[in-house]
Amino acid sequence: MTPQEPVFSDEPTRVRQLVSEFFTGQSGADVGASGLDVLLSMGADARDDCAVFDIGSPLTLVVGSDYIRGSKFILHEMGLLSDFDIGYYLAAANISDVAAMGATPIGLLSVIRYPHELDDEGFRQTAAGVHQACTDFGTLNVGGDIGNAERLILSGTALGVCRPGKALKRSGARPGDLLCVTGACGLLGAAVAYFPKKDSFAPRGLPADAEQRLLDSWRKPRARVAEGRALSEKPYATACQDTSDGLKATIEQIMQASGVGFRVWERDVPVDPVVRMVAELMKVDPLALTMSASSDFHLAFTVAADDLTACRADFTALGLDFFVIGEATDDERAQAVSDEGTRPLPGVAWKHQKSDVSLLATGASDAHAG
Amino acid sequence: MTPQEPVFSDEPTRVRQLVSEFFTGQSGADVGASGLDVLLSMGADARDDCAVFDIGSPLTLVVGSDYIRGSKFILHEMGLLSDFDIGYYLAAANISDVAAMGATPIGLLSVIRYPHELDDEGFRQTAAGVHQACTDFGTLNVGGDIGNAERLILSGTALGVCRPGKALKRSGARPGDLLCVTGACGLLGAAVAYFPKKDSFAPRGLPADAEQRLLDSWRKPRARVAEGRALSEKPYATACQDTSDGLKATIEQIMQASGVGFRVWERDVPVDPVVRMVAELMKVDPLALTMSASSDFHLAFTVAADDLTACRADFTALGLDFFVIGEATDDERAQAVSDEGTRPLPGVAWKHQKSDVSLLATGASDAHAG
Repeated sequence: MTPQEPVFSDEPTRVRQLVSEFFTGQSGADVGASGLDVLLSMGADARDDCAVFDIGSPLTLVVGSDYIRGSKFILHEMGLLSDFDIGYYLAAANISDVAAMGATPIGLLSVIRYPHELDDEGFRQTAAGVHQACTDFGTLNVGGDIGNAERLILSGTALGVCRPGKALKRSGARPGDLLCVTGACGLLGAAVAYFPKKDSFAPRGLPADAEQRLLDSWRKPRARVAEGRALSEKPYATACQDTSDGLKATIEQIMQASGVGFRVWERDVPVDPVVRMVAELMKVDPLALTMSASSDFHLAFTVAADDLTACRADFTALGLDFFVIGEATDDERAQAVSDEGTRPLPGVAWKHQKSDVSLLATGASDAHAG
Repeated sequence: MTPQEPVFSDEPTRVRQLVSEFFTGQSGADVGASGLDVLLSMGADARDDCAVFDIGSPLTLVVGSDYIRGSKFILHEMGLLSDFDIGYYLAAANISDVAAMGATPIGLLSVIRYPHELDDEGFRQTAAGVHQACTDFGTLNVGGDIGNAERLILSGTALGVCRPGKALKRSGARPGDLLCVTGACGLLGAAVAYFPKKDSFAPRGLPADAEQRLLDSWRKPRARVAEGRALSEKPYATACQDTSDGLKATIEQIMQASGVGFRVWERDVPVDPVVRMVAELMKVDPLALTMSASSDFHLAFTVAADDLTACRADFTALGLDFFVIGEATDDERAQAVSDEGTRPLPGVAWKHQKSDVSLLATGASDAHAG
């Protein structure tokens, strides 16, 4: 290869290069503006869900930005999701990043750029979806940037606050910690896998209520704000991340950030019945579909084994739930363990491929460098 | 028209509808999350450059989001601006919004979504431009969201802080206040007007140094951070906004936000010599080109006449400058005044048209609802 030849690396490679070139050592930096007491306690080098600022306040500021795919929202293109639905999803995706830090969302800025063919009502519905999600998740919709564009472009920035030192990181898991998840993952990915191929399954298919459940997973995604707050209020969680890249990718990212490994107990991973049905139609492993790319907003987190009972009690008192699905190890490998033995984690982890994403790797993406 | 017939309003209409439906009365709202002392002091209803939060801190948080056009960056498409240049511009555009509030920028989040054809070096250069602008404007580049997309998508969110109550609004101009601007506007718009039509001017054209000046206006735009800080540290400025929609649009927006009118003294409006040259080639009024859509990052602001001398002295002491170009009136009209009489402000104000923007109305857009 000559030096002039263009190189097209995949996204994880580009993220690594950027972090290496621009962000190394940034966390802990003083902003340095004259007369200001502002500290970036977690920067892009932390590669977490959000950046964290201390601005001399009793509250720490948590902020993250997420672009979501516009015209690539295949279920929207198919007419299965409305303009309202994708507005709602945009807000939920951004608020989820704040929730994953254990912060309470205080505001959402959104970028809604619409193509000429989106009429007033479609635009209004998109904005109404954003607004409704902000209301549902207890945060303020503070506007942002709207205008036209060649195509639909949806991006957002969520702001949150937490007590100083209480932001939940991806990097604190220790060998022996238990790996937990707030619910069954994979529904959103299963929906994207199912609907475009639905005709190919005929005469088999899903019953109407199962299809409805798949669509509802996109229409009313729930950012786990209460769960994040519960985890940040007590010192139980040693690491936390939302599962918007899919459970497998999330586990691998916590693994890399924390420098641990994970053993996932296959029989303890919750599998949604509808995900199982889709997997059977597709003739794939239900656990693989559960763990593959799927832009769910569950939280995956780790707790010390000794704290499990107290953490469970706190969740129960709040009407919340989680599943213990594995444990951290010291060997920096992620493995699935069953009676049949040990294997690499099943599923297709989310990645931005150079070529188009595979069937299982579709869904909204989530690539934070800050 | 039947109720079902789609309606395609222009962007200002859509912004008004959104504000009316979702944002009225938002400013001053308590975020309302349990146990938090967080107030949204300026929300999307204020229709200012940024939203402003008080989070119980000695510093007030200012935050704004701006999408900039990707493939519509015509000078980039023409190869006149590099990937680095548009990354730099993205950061400057967002930091300018914070500067226009009189706040000190503390961090920038950026969304860089690249098409498959952008190679590693192009991506790196885009990110390097963002990073360099953050460095130049004294703020931290805290990452954001990167990944691929069908086309280049660039968006950002800038965070800043100022002393409580010191954020500069668009809404405080009072009749009799003097209208000021930090420099000659219109260079970026003139560049967009000139280069795509350059061949049509032959054999006339611009000398090389004039072309260079046009390109440099895009390559090294300067967010007026120092000017904004100077204005916020003293109580002189009654209103302030950046000129990223063009000077005419900016004056009209301050006018509407403040409920005043403006008389602009034509002979006092600074006109860049190169803007004049482009106007002559185009056979348009140089003042019209100066005031038309152009994504400059000057600040337009108002001060009480009695404060002018002190404000000027502060600027001079900091090595900064501004021009007094008119005065606020009580009649809610914006007019240009010359020896020949009075006329509406010349130029084509930025608007997102339903159809494509006119020659003068090109340039990066800036449509904040918060």
